Amino acid sequence: MVLRIGHRHYRDHRISTHCGLVARVLGASGIIYSGEKDEALLGSIEKITARWGGPFGCRYDPAWKKFVKKWKADGGKVIHLTMYGLRVQDKIEEIKNDSSDLLIIVGGEKVPWDAYELADWNIAVTNQPHSEIAALAIILEKINDSALETVFDGARIRIEPCKKGKKYIGIKMPRKNGDAIL
Amino acid sequence: MVLRIGHRHYRDHRISTHCGLVARVLGASGIIYSGEKDEALLGSIEKITARWGGPFGCRYDPAWKKFVKKWKADGGKVIHLTMYGLRVQDKIEEIKNDSSDLLIIVGGEKVPWDAYELADWNIAVTNQPHSEIAALAIILEKINDSALETVFDGARIRIEPCKKGKKYIGIKMPRKNGDAIL
Repeated sequence: MVLRIGHRHYRDHRISTHCGLVARVLGASGIIYSGEKDEALLGSIEKITARWGGPFGCRYDPAWKKFVKKWKADGGKVIHLTMYGLRVQDKIEEIKNDSSDLLIIVGGEKVPWDAYELADWNIAVTNQPHSEIAALAIILEKINDSALETVFDGARIRIEPCKKGKKYIGIKMPRKNGDAIL
Repeated sequence: MVLRIGHRHYRDHRISTHCGLVARVLGASGIIYSGEKDEALLGSIEKITARWGGPFGCRYDPAWKKFVKKWKADGGKVIHLTMYGLRVQDKIEEIKNDSSDLLIIVGGEKVPWDAYELADWNIAVTNQPHSEIAALAIILEKINDSALETVFDGARIRIEPCKKGKKYIGIKMPRKNGDAIL
């Protein structure tokens, strides 16, 4: 599960959308957005999941600290991605050897101190400024060896890998009235 | 080297900035932006390189096709990142075994057909919609085993990895007048 905190409605729309899509595509079970409520953002992610498959959860929760505390109380562990943290390459084995459910916190411009405090691991994907989207992608792929092979159920469409060009494959699915979508 | 095509001045500012920062941090030699000219974008990348170290080149080139053709004429090869391409996990060994200089093309919303035609490899980091930033990060890390260990010269500042909190280290550098910066 991924938790994106500090979302700002207009300024962060695309960055937060990318975080959600990356979480989905690399095998996270869902994303929770905190900060400013943004229905269009939730809608973008839900639309992709409806079309390209899931399962992938997506919701807004203004009370992210409460959510993190409950996650931990239920036995889960928490990674906070920060350029100030310990190097991912030094901690990845420890993280992979832990069987707890993982929550990955992805911060925005200004991250409250609580995120550092609540985290079991403050992890840096390089100690350099770059991109929370890239950091999330790299850690998800390192945690889950088969992240790139994630299978999506209920897709209405998929792509056939192709040397040059674009090959879509529509997937016929029964509708409630018995007709096929696509 | 990374080539970001189809940049749009306002709409893509943050996404294109993230592409540049990810290219730098994961060991690419530089980034070339095409599409709309955006001095602020170039300035953001140059500022980071001046402060956090390099070498990392960054420039604008409206004639991206000409640049790609010259790259190939000089013996370089070209990867085009596209969700329609062949799976990165299936082609990465072939790419790594090729000793040519690599140019990675990162597209925007609408990618001209020439990008598919000019590429030696059209590569998908999953055949699902997500993020060009994440795709770039994952392929750079797969191409270069020591991408996360990239060393930056001439940095004025660096971060000491830290279990909890923030540790900056200023690096004293001789100025032309003999004083130290920081």
